[in-house]
Amino acid sequence: MNLPKPLDGAAAIHVRAGSRRAIQRVLPEEAAVAMVYDGTTHAVMMATPADIEDFALGFSLSEGIVTGQGQIASCTVVAQDQGIEARLWLTGDRAEALAARRRNLAGPVGCGLCGIDSLEQAMRPLPDLDGIGPVMTSGDIAGATDALRDWQPLHDRSRAVHAAGFLIPGKGIVLAREDVGRHNALDKLIGAMARQGLDAGQGAFVVTSRVSIEMVQKCAMAGCAVLIAVSAPTLHALRLAEGAGITLAAFARGEGFDLFSHPERLSAEVSDVA
Amino acid sequence: MNLPKPLDGAAAIHVRAGSRRAIQRVLPEEAAVAMVYDGTTHAVMMATPADIEDFALGFSLSEGIVTGQGQIASCTVVAQDQGIEARLWLTGDRAEALAARRRNLAGPVGCGLCGIDSLEQAMRPLPDLDGIGPVMTSGDIAGATDALRDWQPLHDRSRAVHAAGFLIPGKGIVLAREDVGRHNALDKLIGAMARQGLDAGQGAFVVTSRVSIEMVQKCAMAGCAVLIAVSAPTLHALRLAEGAGITLAAFARGEGFDLFSHPERLSAEVSDVA
Repeated sequence: MNLPKPLDGAAAIHVRAGSRRAIQRVLPEEAAVAMVYDGTTHAVMMATPADIEDFALGFSLSEGIVTGQGQIASCTVVAQDQGIEARLWLTGDRAEALAARRRNLAGPVGCGLCGIDSLEQAMRPLPDLDGIGPVMTSGDIAGATDALRDWQPLHDRSRAVHAAGFLIPGKGIVLAREDVGRHNALDKLIGAMARQGLDAGQGAFVVTSRVSIEMVQKCAMAGCAVLIAVSAPTLHALRLAEGAGITLAAFARGEGFDLFSHPERLSAEVSDVA
Repeated sequence: MNLPKPLDGAAAIHVRAGSRRAIQRVLPEEAAVAMVYDGTTHAVMMATPADIEDFALGFSLSEGIVTGQGQIASCTVVAQDQGIEARLWLTGDRAEALAARRRNLAGPVGCGLCGIDSLEQAMRPLPDLDGIGPVMTSGDIAGATDALRDWQPLHDRSRAVHAAGFLIPGKGIVLAREDVGRHNALDKLIGAMARQGLDAGQGAFVVTSRVSIEMVQKCAMAGCAVLIAVSAPTLHALRLAEGAGITLAAFARGEGFDLFSHPERLSAEVSDVA
């Protein structure tokens, strides 16, 4: 099975100040990836064609299709003409649960949010992580996005790929994954962590993107109580993080960051300023 | 009907160099928006709660559900507890076509790409715009993203919202829409242009984001032969643009840009440099 390369060179004409010259740019690939459970396509997403097994497991966990790696009997990645299929076969209980979920759908409808067919399903209730998770220093949080830069080989070459990393206080980033899509990068990380037995409750997810509600949903489903992002959260994402007991730090760049929810996980070394 | 505000203030704790202070940040809202055709939900997307009628029409055009505004008998926007419904009723022919498309789906499956249930559908054939569309100067293209900045009131206040604008050579940006999602911003623009009778074939779409395949698909479906983007295209998007006859200019910032496909629409005033 040969997947496309995650990056490759492309010819372009660089135009500047009235002159032009031929150049090469390294650009990211993207491929349609179908998540196929027990023979039925559940979702199709555009993603970087790498770490597809991590993606399939992470997506399955984030969407609540399984609650652990053991519920996936097998996962086979198949390159097709039009894209990539991740063919997952579930163990008995979960296969029945997913089949029941399908029967409960109102009809043969599509969706925009990965297998979701209604407003209610998009706003599904989340686990509450209040009172669990790590305490972090301001240095842990402020340095997180800089530390993630060492884990972005695809971004280093293309300047156009998102990353999600897992930070353990005192240890720094211990694992990361990249994807052209910010959601996919986080799902790949969650899947890779599950395969390596890393407990998401011991640290923080660090992402190069903004924080939309799906990022908070994935965090909560994975049991990770701290989310650190380079860019802004949406108000909706902030409300979800508040409700799910998640510490949300955004605009985290260099020395500073903004804490939007559950600041009790920030250690007391930081002094108040009037 | 009261939609949520597209932006609002949020309290945060700004932490920097070991001290903390209370601040307010203006953040973008996001809401689940359901596209409901003839009483059946077709897609649910997270979007900025503004210009929903534009969004509904633009999405319908981009997805090929209608080929013109006249095929939508009515569109009502309804605020619900969990989000927003755009309730569209199609005229006879299109209603039958959409119902037939639903019956042809393999089963009650979800999707990740707005009503798409297979790899084949994600990679649908596109109109070929080769030989049509405007000729543009390097100044038109180089200045496009700067010109778009004057049309980004939500971004000015929040620094966290994408925009898509329509540029007519010699006239500059004539219309633009904003959204937390780059796809939605473009769909909103396409819908707004259709409502105002603007012909997409006369100019270029200008976007603040990178270019994934969906952006090229929307461009082709709208009949716009030039796409100008601030950030990188993916290789897949580049291949699609090449095949659909679309001129793709990316990394367009300030003075310079890179032309990746169909450079014949660049006017001859630009000289070659060895």
